[in-house]
Amino acid sequence: MRISELSARAGIATATIKYYLREGLLPPGELTSATQARYNEQHVERLRLVRALLGPAKLTVARVRDVLRVIDEPGADMFTALGAAQHATLDEVEAVDTSVALALVERAGWRVDPSGPELAQLARALHAADDADFEIPEGVLDAHINAAARVAEAELAHMPEDPRHALRYAVLGTILAEPLLSALRRLAEQSAAADRFGPAT
Amino acid sequence: MRISELSARAGIATATIKYYLREGLLPPGELTSATQARYNEQHVERLRLVRALLGPAKLTVARVRDVLRVIDEPGADMFTALGAAQHATLDEVEAVDTSVALALVERAGWRVDPSGPELAQLARALHAADDADFEIPEGVLDAHINAAARVAEAELAHMPEDPRHALRYAVLGTILAEPLLSALRRLAEQSAAADRFGPAT
Repeated sequence: MRISELSARAGIATATIKYYLREGLLPPGELTSATQARYNEQHVERLRLVRALLGPAKLTVARVRDVLRVIDEPGADMFTALGAAQHATLDEVEAVDTSVALALVERAGWRVDPSGPELAQLARALHAADDADFEIPEGVLDAHINAAARVAEAELAHMPEDPRHALRYAVLGTILAEPLLSALRRLAEQSAAADRFGPAT
Repeated sequence: MRISELSARAGIATATIKYYLREGLLPPGELTSATQARYNEQHVERLRLVRALLGPAKLTVARVRDVLRVIDEPGADMFTALGAAQHATLDEVEAVDTSVALALVERAGWRVDPSGPELAQLARALHAADDADFEIPEGVLDAHINAAARVAEAELAHMPEDPRHALRYAVLGTILAEPLLSALRRLAEQSAAADRFGPAT
């Protein structure tokens, strides 16, 4: 298909597609003349992925490039590729004291990278609660740990076998499910409050 | 205590405290002369709350004012106050088609406000996945629903009895636990991936 049809199919303006091409977020089409190129279904799929990463996930162009590189060249070691994909979606976190976060992860019995940005992210979240003088009750913390573990297990259980599909799934799952889980938690809180304090049904 | 001591205690610059006073985020101290005021422990606590709401939670000044108003004047009806506190922490969401989101909530058996911003937030998260052509497996969706329900139950179970404390707890819990749960989920994914693909311990 031509770029105009690609634009219509993906619902993305031609100018934006050209920008993605220049930035290397979309592989070039097959040249059919000096000024025209032909695009295929993989371009449509890639455009949707790029839009999700730049839009809802709010990643920078450079970071999207990192994510796409991992998806396109996963290498032989799935564990390393998954880690790289996850890291690529996360902003650099300034160095923080991770001792409390590490203790929490050990209590959960998880195997994690002690120097990774994810642990720093957890440490920051715990520090923020501490700064606000907000003590998270142990029972609530445990509920969060169990919830995270259950979600991760389900995500892994449904991961596609094919490495490229698996990495796309992991990246999109990590990124798109974040606002989903936040929204669900607020709705569940609303429902729990209705059960306890609200009017009878 | 004087403003200088309040500044030292809360770890917030005097100029910032004066800004909060002007914006009505901090109640005025007790005047001891024409130019001096005395502050107390409640001011320290309030400063920490304001910092958490403006900082990690990234709320606007106007929105922080809304949250504080609900905490300070919860009224007699805890259900309404909790709802108002939760709404105040959420940005306005543009109108979206909430039919799929509503079906999901009904499947979960939750009692929620069908016209509230939380449902619109869920709808947006689902639309974003759809736009990216990312189909969330049913089993993963169910895991998210269960996780959200478990967390909300634990949060409600540990909520303080006193209405003002309960509202502070609800606001800070909703806001500060969001990055916590995100970080925990990424770490749990890392651990689950290590168990499945990683090197033996």
